[in-house]
Amino acid sequence: MTDTRAPYRGEDLRFDYDRDAFLRRLQRLLPRADQVIDDPEGLRPYECDGLAAYRQLPVAVAIPETIEQAQAVLALCHEYRVPVTARGAGTSLSAGALPHPQGIVLSLARFNRILELDPLRRTARVQPGVRNLAVSEAARPHGLYYAPDPSSQIACSIGGNVAENAGGVHCLKYGLTVHNVLAATVLTPEGERIDIGSSALDAPGYDLMALYTGSEGMLGVIVEATVRLLPEPVHKEVLLAAFPSVEAGGHAVAGVIGAGIIPAGLEMMDGPAIRAAEDFVHAGYPTDAAAILIAELDGAPDEVTEEVTRLSDLLRQHGASEVRVAADAAEQARFWAGRKAAFPAVGRISPDYYCMDGTIPRHQLANVLTGIDRLSREYGLRVVNVFHAGDGNLHPLVLYDGNVPGEFERTEELGRRILELCVDAGGTVTGEHGVGLEKIDAMCHQFRPAELEQFHAVKAAFDEAGCLNPGKAVPTLHRCAEFGALHVHHGQLPHPELERF
Amino acid sequence: MTDTRAPYRGEDLRFDYDRDAFLRRLQRLLPRADQVIDDPEGLRPYECDGLAAYRQLPVAVAIPETIEQAQAVLALCHEYRVPVTARGAGTSLSAGALPHPQGIVLSLARFNRILELDPLRRTARVQPGVRNLAVSEAARPHGLYYAPDPSSQIACSIGGNVAENAGGVHCLKYGLTVHNVLAATVLTPEGERIDIGSSALDAPGYDLMALYTGSEGMLGVIVEATVRLLPEPVHKEVLLAAFPSVEAGGHAVAGVIGAGIIPAGLEMMDGPAIRAAEDFVHAGYPTDAAAILIAELDGAPDEVTEEVTRLSDLLRQHGASEVRVAADAAEQARFWAGRKAAFPAVGRISPDYYCMDGTIPRHQLANVLTGIDRLSREYGLRVVNVFHAGDGNLHPLVLYDGNVPGEFERTEELGRRILELCVDAGGTVTGEHGVGLEKIDAMCHQFRPAELEQFHAVKAAFDEAGCLNPGKAVPTLHRCAEFGALHVHHGQLPHPELERF
Repeated sequence: MTDTRAPYRGEDLRFDYDRDAFLRRLQRLLPRADQVIDDPEGLRPYECDGLAAYRQLPVAVAIPETIEQAQAVLALCHEYRVPVTARGAGTSLSAGALPHPQGIVLSLARFNRILELDPLRRTARVQPGVRNLAVSEAARPHGLYYAPDPSSQIACSIGGNVAENAGGVHCLKYGLTVHNVLAATVLTPEGERIDIGSSALDAPGYDLMALYTGSEGMLGVIVEATVRLLPEPVHKEVLLAAFPSVEAGGHAVAGVIGAGIIPAGLEMMDGPAIRAAEDFVHAGYPTDAAAILIAELDGAPDEVTEEVTRLSDLLRQHGASEVRVAADAAEQARFWAGRKAAFPAVGRISPDYYCMDGTIPRHQLANVLTGIDRLSREYGLRVVNVFHAGDGNLHPLVLYDGNVPGEFERTEELGRRILELCVDAGGTVTGEHGVGLEKIDAMCHQFRPAELEQFHAVKAAFDEAGCLNPGKAVPTLHRCAEFGALHVHHGQLPHPELERF
Repeated sequence: MTDTRAPYRGEDLRFDYDRDAFLRRLQRLLPRADQVIDDPEGLRPYECDGLAAYRQLPVAVAIPETIEQAQAVLALCHEYRVPVTARGAGTSLSAGALPHPQGIVLSLARFNRILELDPLRRTARVQPGVRNLAVSEAARPHGLYYAPDPSSQIACSIGGNVAENAGGVHCLKYGLTVHNVLAATVLTPEGERIDIGSSALDAPGYDLMALYTGSEGMLGVIVEATVRLLPEPVHKEVLLAAFPSVEAGGHAVAGVIGAGIIPAGLEMMDGPAIRAAEDFVHAGYPTDAAAILIAELDGAPDEVTEEVTRLSDLLRQHGASEVRVAADAAEQARFWAGRKAAFPAVGRISPDYYCMDGTIPRHQLANVLTGIDRLSREYGLRVVNVFHAGDGNLHPLVLYDGNVPGEFERTEELGRRILELCVDAGGTVTGEHGVGLEKIDAMCHQFRPAELEQFHAVKAAFDEAGCLNPGKAVPTLHRCAEFGALHVHHGQLPHPELERF
């Protein structure tokens, strides 16, 4: 991408402190030369995350190696009122790990050990910098794996997964990160250590584990997490179905889930995505189809065999022109390869693309796809659709050329309109990528002022000084008013408090 | 039960207001004579919930019929700083709905309508006073049901289920209430209305839906909830296995789950429970067994048939002396009838019993059962064990005679020791009954001061004045210090803040 955003605006985000004194103290806490970075060249890799359109250099990067060091860094930042953005692998797609201009990045890259793997309890206790896939790799000798599998699972880390409540292909059946994290050790903004959650069924007290999960680094810093491991399925089958229209594919998804079949994965690609992927990896996709569904079924062999039959029948009843069952493991891998390569494949047919992430109730799939098509024509920008159909999580890719003046702005506006479409259909502005800075204005469309105020109250209960990842995830009412999105919503008038601003 | 507790102590719980003026204003808000109760006779039914050992008359009971009336009542209580305890059907087993001596009960009994049932989305939007079972009854014509099924499901209401994060037999496979509630309309302590959660996969912002779920009426009052409905299983089988010892039964449970079988229900009863139930309902249980497991498997016919074989083999490998598969629906019902009647059956063999609710990691079942047996002998009190074995949720029933001086006190102490055993085994002091007032001291054993402080900060973010159900669920540090339970825990020294008290 060639254009970059000026990510922060001034509101509520001024932090005044003696930068030199702070840096001297920081260097004393982390004595090794490679633990504090503050030269422009060294800071460069930290100026953005996976959403490279937003860039901002931090004041410094702190790289603690122990919980005690991380506690000391947080306590120091709290004392000086310095913004802190925790960073795992930096693969966020919503600028969640974008630094604050007056702040430091707290890198958890060296918290990279698997502390305990208990095959009997089926849990792994890991440091936050451990890569998602590394957990499954360590569990494999015991016939176990960690279910949430974001596309970035080779690179992304567990801490970031918890912060963003990451999803993935298998979340339809096995849940999001919040359903697979049992407990965590969290540092408060003051650097105090608390233990939350439980590996038992339920934990008494307020559900802080669910609250921290998906809180985008705004409430605390996770320094240890205990995750659930699942037994690897005994048997699996992968099906591919072709449809004459995306609407038919959308109805088929609603029909499958409605019939009580919960595949381990149920993914959809539209025509342009099919052809881009096929050109790229030769997955054997039907390039004349308007949409394909890829479904994975897993379990005991007999149940899977029965479900393959039921699912195939259902897909045909919903208009599939062709249903193929992968003949062997090699063909299964090929069916998935096309889906997994869809994003880079789209990168080959357009100078730039912008990946959206919205969620809608499943039965709205056909409706929303029609709406996206209409918007695409209105803005004169091509939209390619690749998504976790089973759980209604859309990833429309808007194709654009960053070198054409104004095209990125038009892309951003189209993206916003698509998210509004999702909200109006009863959905949300993010499924698994988080809000970060990218979708903070869309939050004004999603929530009423009373709800945003409750979010701010929660933030204040954990981080009164507002130092943790300031300006992300939850917009100020002021920002929403500026953005002009505080219109009547849910049939309610805006909150009278708003007049304060 | 003959003895009753003096439930509240003074700390942090003084509320001074002009009671007459408050009551006059309350009566003006709820004009119908039957909407405000303040005569002793009328208040009597509200003095306790399902845990009748704790009794306290409120100042008044308010019975609004509309959201607007409930908002007005909350705003008034906030203005006068009057404690408010929301009450659904009053079936709580932890004194969660016990009134505050200076407070009112906000009855949601007339919020009893199912507002919308959408078979396509598979959701029901209901008022909080709707009975749990009524949701499934309304959904049945569409082949759907609401999964969480507490034993009290005939009587208990959805609002209370959300407040307590209720469980039930089927929660092993289908999750607790928190996994089955999608969205809610909540009133803040000031009477403001906010919408939380989403019927889409994920909601952006902090996960307030999970936070309110299980918050025991301390954060807000739920006036509407949208719950997930599931398709009724096509086919089910019920198995009964007899074991020569409770330890063998415990190992079998860990073995079943470890093998990747997640039954729709997996319940265990020990010898005394088996014999009490058999005498009462003639379920056909093997009365010479030391323990039985009852397992329900559901799904497509072929998968269930395969799982029955796998499960039977596993149970025998783990020492089951007998495994029976119910021959027909009548026998299935009989197998369950004994389990469902276990509590009243125990009531027939003892003047009184006290039902505990702790949760432990499944692999600790055999250990903890041995520990409970040891404690039972130490205290000279019989303990009968009935529990949701699959998810490690124990319900030890302590048998006692309330007419024997000191026996209830000994029972309470034994109960506390059992919960400490659960915590020390990596478990928690409640699985599904909530903390309420009953287990508030046990929370001092479960959590360190830093964690309790974070709970209090959350409470303050939602209810700064502290009017909602004060004194429940989360103990003050002062109370824990008095209770003497702030010992070294998780290898950490007590929090220095404690010296403040």
